[in-house]
Amino acid sequence: MFKNLNQKNNDSIRVEKDSIGKKEIAADSYYGINTIRAQENFNISRQNIHPELVKAISMIKKAAALSNFELGLLDEIKKNAILEACDEMIDSNLAEKLELDAFQGGAGTSTNMMVNEVIANRALEIMGMQKGDYDIIHPNDDVNKGQSTNDVYPTALRIAVLKLLGPLTKSIAKLQEVLQVKEEEFSSIIKLGRTQLQDAVPITLGQEFSAYAEAVNRDRWRLYKITDRLKKINLGGTAIGTGLNTSHSYIFKIAKHLRNFTSLSLSHSENMIDITQNMDIFVEVSGLLKAASVNLNKIASDLRLLASGPTGGIGEIKLPAVQAGSSIMPGKVNPVICEMINQLSIEIICSDQAITMAARDGQLELNAFSPIIAQKLLNMLEMMKKAIDKFNNKCVKDIEVNSDKCKQILDNSLAIITSLVPYIGYEQASDLAKEAVNQDKKLIDFIKEKDIISNSKLDKILKLENMTSPGNNLSE
Amino acid sequence: MFKNLNQKNNDSIRVEKDSIGKKEIAADSYYGINTIRAQENFNISRQNIHPELVKAISMIKKAAALSNFELGLLDEIKKNAILEACDEMIDSNLAEKLELDAFQGGAGTSTNMMVNEVIANRALEIMGMQKGDYDIIHPNDDVNKGQSTNDVYPTALRIAVLKLLGPLTKSIAKLQEVLQVKEEEFSSIIKLGRTQLQDAVPITLGQEFSAYAEAVNRDRWRLYKITDRLKKINLGGTAIGTGLNTSHSYIFKIAKHLRNFTSLSLSHSENMIDITQNMDIFVEVSGLLKAASVNLNKIASDLRLLASGPTGGIGEIKLPAVQAGSSIMPGKVNPVICEMINQLSIEIICSDQAITMAARDGQLELNAFSPIIAQKLLNMLEMMKKAIDKFNNKCVKDIEVNSDKCKQILDNSLAIITSLVPYIGYEQASDLAKEAVNQDKKLIDFIKEKDIISNSKLDKILKLENMTSPGNNLSE
Amino acid sequence: MFKNLNQKNNDSIRVEKDSIGKKEIAADSYYGINTIRAQENFNISRQNIHPELVKAISMIKKAAALSNFELGLLDEIKKNAILEACDEMIDSNLAEKLELDAFQGGAGTSTNMMVNEVIANRALEIMGMQKGDYDIIHPNDDVNKGQSTNDVYPTALRIAVLKLLGPLTKSIAKLQEVLQVKEEEFSSIIKLGRTQLQDAVPITLGQEFSAYAEAVNRDRWRLYKITDRLKKINLGGTAIGTGLNTSHSYIFKIAKHLRNFTSLSLSHSENMIDITQNMDIFVEVSGLLKAASVNLNKIASDLRLLASGPTGGIGEIKLPAVQAGSSIMPGKVNPVICEMINQLSIEIICSDQAITMAARDGQLELNAFSPIIAQKLLNMLEMMKKAIDKFNNKCVKDIEVNSDKCKQILDNSLAIITSLVPYIGYEQASDLAKEAVNQDKKLIDFIKEKDIISNSKLDKILKLENMTSPGNNLSE
Amino acid sequence: MFKNLNQKNNDSIRVEKDSIGKKEIAADSYYGINTIRAQENFNISRQNIHPELVKAISMIKKAAALSNFELGLLDEIKKNAILEACDEMIDSNLAEKLELDAFQGGAGTSTNMMVNEVIANRALEIMGMQKGDYDIIHPNDDVNKGQSTNDVYPTALRIAVLKLLGPLTKSIAKLQEVLQVKEEEFSSIIKLGRTQLQDAVPITLGQEFSAYAEAVNRDRWRLYKITDRLKKINLGGTAIGTGLNTSHSYIFKIAKHLRNFTSLSLSHSENMIDITQNMDIFVEVSGLLKAASVNLNKIASDLRLLASGPTGGIGEIKLPAVQAGSSIMPGKVNPVICEMINQLSIEIICSDQAITMAARDGQLELNAFSPIIAQKLLNMLEMMKKAIDKFNNKCVKDIEVNSDKCKQILDNSLAIITSLVPYIGYEQASDLAKEAVNQDKKLIDFIKEKDIISNSKLDKILKLENMTSPGNNLSE
Repeated sequence: MFKNLNQKNNDSIRVEKDSIGKKEIAADSYYGINTIRAQENFNISRQNIHPELVKAISMIKKAAALSNFELGLLDEIKKNAILEACDEMIDSNLAEKLELDAFQGGAGTSTNMMVNEVIANRALEIMGMQKGDYDIIHPNDDVNKGQSTNDVYPTALRIAVLKLLGPLTKSIAKLQEVLQVKEEEFSSIIKLGRTQLQDAVPITLGQEFSAYAEAVNRDRWRLYKITDRLKKINLGGTAIGTGLNTSHSYIFKIAKHLRNFTSLSLSHSENMIDITQNMDIFVEVSGLLKAASVNLNKIASDLRLLASGPTGGIGEIKLPAVQAGSSIMPGKVNPVICEMINQLSIEIICSDQAITMAARDGQLELNAFSPIIAQKLLNMLEMMKKAIDKFNNKCVKDIEVNSDKCKQILDNSLAIITSLVPYIGYEQASDLAKEAVNQDKKLIDFIKEKDIISNSKLDKILKLENMTSPGNNLSE
Repeated sequence: MFKNLNQKNNDSIRVEKDSIGKKEIAADSYYGINTIRAQENFNISRQNIHPELVKAISMIKKAAALSNFELGLLDEIKKNAILEACDEMIDSNLAEKLELDAFQGGAGTSTNMMVNEVIANRALEIMGMQKGDYDIIHPNDDVNKGQSTNDVYPTALRIAVLKLLGPLTKSIAKLQEVLQVKEEEFSSIIKLGRTQLQDAVPITLGQEFSAYAEAVNRDRWRLYKITDRLKKINLGGTAIGTGLNTSHSYIFKIAKHLRNFTSLSLSHSENMIDITQNMDIFVEVSGLLKAASVNLNKIASDLRLLASGPTGGIGEIKLPAVQAGSSIMPGKVNPVICEMINQLSIEIICSDQAITMAARDGQLELNAFSPIIAQKLLNMLEMMKKAIDKFNNKCVKDIEVNSDKCKQILDNSLAIITSLVPYIGYEQASDLAKEAVNQDKKLIDFIKEKDIISNSKLDKILKLENMTSPGNNLSE
Repeated sequence: MFKNLNQKNNDSIRVEKDSIGKKEIAADSYYGINTIRAQENFNISRQNIHPELVKAISMIKKAAALSNFELGLLDEIKKNAILEACDEMIDSNLAEKLELDAFQGGAGTSTNMMVNEVIANRALEIMGMQKGDYDIIHPNDDVNKGQSTNDVYPTALRIAVLKLLGPLTKSIAKLQEVLQVKEEEFSSIIKLGRTQLQDAVPITLGQEFSAYAEAVNRDRWRLYKITDRLKKINLGGTAIGTGLNTSHSYIFKIAKHLRNFTSLSLSHSENMIDITQNMDIFVEVSGLLKAASVNLNKIASDLRLLASGPTGGIGEIKLPAVQAGSSIMPGKVNPVICEMINQLSIEIICSDQAITMAARDGQLELNAFSPIIAQKLLNMLEMMKKAIDKFNNKCVKDIEVNSDKCKQILDNSLAIITSLVPYIGYEQASDLAKEAVNQDKKLIDFIKEKDIISNSKLDKILKLENMTSPGNNLSE
Repeated sequence: MFKNLNQKNNDSIRVEKDSIGKKEIAADSYYGINTIRAQENFNISRQNIHPELVKAISMIKKAAALSNFELGLLDEIKKNAILEACDEMIDSNLAEKLELDAFQGGAGTSTNMMVNEVIANRALEIMGMQKGDYDIIHPNDDVNKGQSTNDVYPTALRIAVLKLLGPLTKSIAKLQEVLQVKEEEFSSIIKLGRTQLQDAVPITLGQEFSAYAEAVNRDRWRLYKITDRLKKINLGGTAIGTGLNTSHSYIFKIAKHLRNFTSLSLSHSENMIDITQNMDIFVEVSGLLKAASVNLNKIASDLRLLASGPTGGIGEIKLPAVQAGSSIMPGKVNPVICEMINQLSIEIICSDQAITMAARDGQLELNAFSPIIAQKLLNMLEMMKKAIDKFNNKCVKDIEVNSDKCKQILDNSLAIITSLVPYIGYEQASDLAKEAVNQDKKLIDFIKEKDIISNSKLDKILKLENMTSPGNNLSE
């Protein structure tokens, strides 16, 4: 396994060179000259490359090494060392320790180069060689053989997105499930429905949760349907998708091995030039995450409204307390998980904007700005999954209803008057409502007192299912 | 037909009243008190309601009138007059003359009320009655019968979106077709491919257009697939989707008639509460338009780059001149259609942001901000269609190639050196390239002079198909 | 005065030509060949050029004609005719009737050309000549003399922005004033303060309005301070700001006349190349409008929350009813003016995004995308002014308090407990609060019952000013 | 100094409790129960609190401790220990090691609580006590004494912003300086000016850099002017800005000490309620950073265009090579630093959007979403500073001109024809240009051949200063 990924153990150095010139590097560093230069050029953001991207690139390196071996372009010893190094990167949490700024120029070249160098040096180590002995295993000529950043990077990003989409959709499905449990649990709680924050007509709390569940269900479905379009890859397209200097057999082999290593039904696109330069597929995925974040935000904001108070707001529901709310006000509990979701939605929406702008800025045969696309999209997928899990476990599943409050608010409101319109007419209904308000009486009591509708009929009209579903509340 | 929609013909007035109070209205005005108040409350933007929305609402009014008639809730004379008024609104260009600000508060209530009033007054006129004789035909009790803004508006918006999506996807398909014609036309023009604005390897101009066509094809496909999800409607859900005060037979009848009038396979949603309050479907559509605008922008920007010059830029292609470019510089022609597309993409992206924010701001049983969603989305659909048509007809279809420039640039570049790597090795290739530059010779001449590769082999390597597709350029 | 700006009166035609070719034009049309081509090229958006921009360009035309006359480059008769035509455009509402799409390619050339042609043809008409007699007065050689779109357009946009900033800041100042009247009016209404929608500590309704007024005051101040930076112009810079083909005396003359006609203290920039190409000043203005819209949105949303109910929400204040809220729910009134403000803020924020993107896309010596910048910015300024006026007159100034509700909510809450902490300690305060809740008693009654603090002391602690300002509520 | 900030050294535990319940904590952990709960509730983003915010909060804790000591509310031993702990946090790089997710709900309460707990436990350690001995020093009662998150957090954010603004404006000033050096260096390089990517008229390369320098100068000025408005603080406002439970003397003392510790001329706002709830000041700062990013992006994109090629593009300038550009294409060098700046601008613009949305979402007495505002704004300030330094040192300062290419492009173009218009008229100029193109001759040679203008006159006209500044090129 890799040792001391980012630490120098001794003072000895090796010298590497590239087309710019020579550079001294700590002898035991897995990073080579390209990585070191990139680290110097781009350290601006405190954010490293997303580990899932590094893992996906490592899978491609593995598939390439195996393909090249089968084509007689790489010998067995080197192939085995490279494969072992790739596996270590894929199966461990090393990827998140690699130090290279995510906000890098260069269309991902530095990221690809870093993986090439790290894999090469680890493979050399496995073979018992010195790091930097690129005559034996060369980052470009061996690890990157048959590839270009420009086919590796878009392919790796697709794989990483697919890898993160799975757990995310599971978490969304779980949210739907938890909401549906609540829908069931609250199905008999009748309460005031509100439009434009003004009292409207009755609804059940269960119905409110059913609308949330339904919206979330759409998100799940959308994210499920997008996966197919993500499975077209451009490996073998090399520099600009024309496939210069690759063979057909290589193209088929690497796709086959990659399907195997990733367990994803990837296939190479019929127009690799297109995929090399166009990033709209990531705009599409990101747009769907944005739609999901809109629904999540709506739910979180509604929950905060319904739980507002406890006494000075609506207070119809109670969110679980997960931390103390204030140092100065005793006993205050705030809806912090919902507020996290609200901020998540801002993050998702603005990341989508960033992806859109970067995709839009592509020029000719390549999009130089794919690094920001990759970083934003992978972060969105990971954050949304984690935030939804928190939302499920630390908020939604333990929401309680304050049934007395629901009843009291509904009773004090004029919401039931609309139900009477089919029986006593719009005008008489209006007059009754006004009079009740003027006399400061509860509407229901006032109607009974007035004896306009028989009590039995009134009971029927005001039955929960008659006030909250079509067809039942008409004189027909 | 409606006469003098927005003009008063005489000084006589009628008086209408609502829950706020009374108001004098020009006697011959089709607008009633609700419209007048809304016109006073919201005139801030110079933008009226999109006509397609008004037409869709009129279709709903028509379907409702017919359903209510069949249910015995509206008499035949009134039904006929309402139907005739609706048809006039649907079949004419009156809708775009209605004066009501698109940036209105109130979740679309004012828009719905305006259609109710205009239809009612026109129906009265058809019946030979005075406008304002609401005892005979009432905007609310007759035209709006069985409906609420909250089920009418989201349904109408879906219909209007579907109505505009059709022509848009046709225009996109046409763009794809035009691009493919160019792909064919330019299939034998070999030229320099560029990554990160730096010289890379050869490509054909046809291949560049194929990548554009492929991207546009994805847009067409995406917009086609979305239509299904738009066909779920909440008519009959009334105020908050619970269906209070409607009957099952009404819900089925109105959907059936609306399918008929719109020629769209609409069906009512199983969760009308959800559709009444959640706007994510419009975020999804808008997100796809955004993805399309990213592709359009990429193409337009590429065309501007490739046509830059004529002498002081790349100048490989020539865009058709559609207007004079400068008053001060004689003969200057600018890529104005492409620049319009670039600005379109900004408009689309920012409208998507607006729709997202408005959808995200929804609260409880309704989204009060649906008017801005409707206006932005319908404008996007219309503008994109019109802009693509211009792009097709006034730019893409008449693009010409400057083959000499393509050849000259490619010949002067080092782009072909990569093709030689499989034959002479990376290192010798690099050295040759450097030497040619130092001696200020064209690379191809220099290679021939050096006689490293036989002329026949060199000819084979440099054949168009061998430099621009996989498999051919290897010694295998 | 201009007659029939957009209508043909007869079938006779004239022929004009440009570098593209010839074109038949209705003989009585003020538009010339450049306008007609632009109308054909760009009709995609239903939005015409903002009238304030046309007026500002006309002022520049007027200043140029006078300067050229003084320099002996334009004869008196032509000068007088041009000046009269310009004045008609500036002083009338003709500018908003000009038909040319705001979403045009070409950096504003079409807009400038249209004004040149319309002024030239009107000047010819004034002189008793035929429209199209450009030998006598030429749109380019006479009306546009000494100018380029590239110095006219950025200068005109600055003038138009300054012209609209004045009324906007007045409306903002008025809003501040109205809010301060409410601050005064509500200064003795003590109520519950809320953080994170949870009950916090007491505040007065006046204090809440004071915070709104203070925020609005910052907006006023920011917009006032920006005007200086807008007054640097690049007239005389011609095509790219280098001033090719103009004289120093022209540059000084035109600035002088323009100062006179606009009543703005404009001066020419020392670096006209910069101003010709860089649009950051408009990003800055737009960013300040965005900040203002954030404050407006906060206020509008707060008002909707505080007015929610009337019974099923907070209901501490009452917004004036400006229109009926629902066709199905009798007597419902919605906060439609606040909702309009919420949507305004979305429009402002997304327009700012559009301006930012367009400014960012500028290339080399010019920004081709200035038309979308102009349209968005002028619309923002106008819409915000109009919306704030509505907000002032139809909402804020007539807000009423429900003092009983304020008192009742505060009394029922635990908000006053924090005030007791300095006297009885945090722990005892907590216990008291819990106990009161458990026994379902109002906190204040419970404290009196318990007799922990003398009534006189309690009265002092609970005095309005002691609960809502520092320093008074300590035992010191 | 703090030891093992995030590591447990042994298995012993302590138990802490809060209003939610009890929790076991590693005995040697500096974090207390509030931090631990927050770490569990919010770990979604891989991003910790920005260290500058932690430092600013620590300065406030220090100022508060000293004030409380002077007011007799904190004894000397505790004060000294707290001050020492604060100093360690302020002067070290410990702040960036604290583990707490930046995307947290709760208006910053968790961040404030974490600092309280960490300072308290370190102070206990300094006093030789056990961590968790809150009877001796309590996170809330001692470290947070007189404060509320709601006055600490907005004040700390202002301090952190001011602390980062200084270095940023210095870097911007440096960029301006470097650009001006280039302006001077390139002042005699005459070249083609381009508008809308089409050949226009001559300009010097120095003039192009002068426009960049001027734009950057505006950014520097704007950011300098904003600092005043940031210096108003709400410390002493406590929970909602009313100042409940604080004294006037405390308010003045803490401001005085904080001025001293921060070296910033802070003063407390006259309306602390406003500052507690309104976040528009951060929208304003962020909007200015956005304007700066627009200018940076314009410059970076222009440099990429001007350096495009080397042979197949414009190639007028050469950017320094900072890393190898491709593994497959030998010798390719890409404009990676410029591309990083392009991505930076996207990040800034979208962060501004996030800040705007979060500020806009504030409700009543507090903005619950200030954590995302803080994180985005501090990241923007830091990233922009670092990226500009890279841009200065690794790109702009080492840009070289390719004067031959500049001359050759200009000579081959028709750009000088406009200079002849004042001498030979627009029409003859046009004809000459067309003829030269038809005969495939350089315009300058053709004019000399035609002998229309004397050679001496032509030399004068074509002198650099005459083609690139006003007044010189007229026959006057």
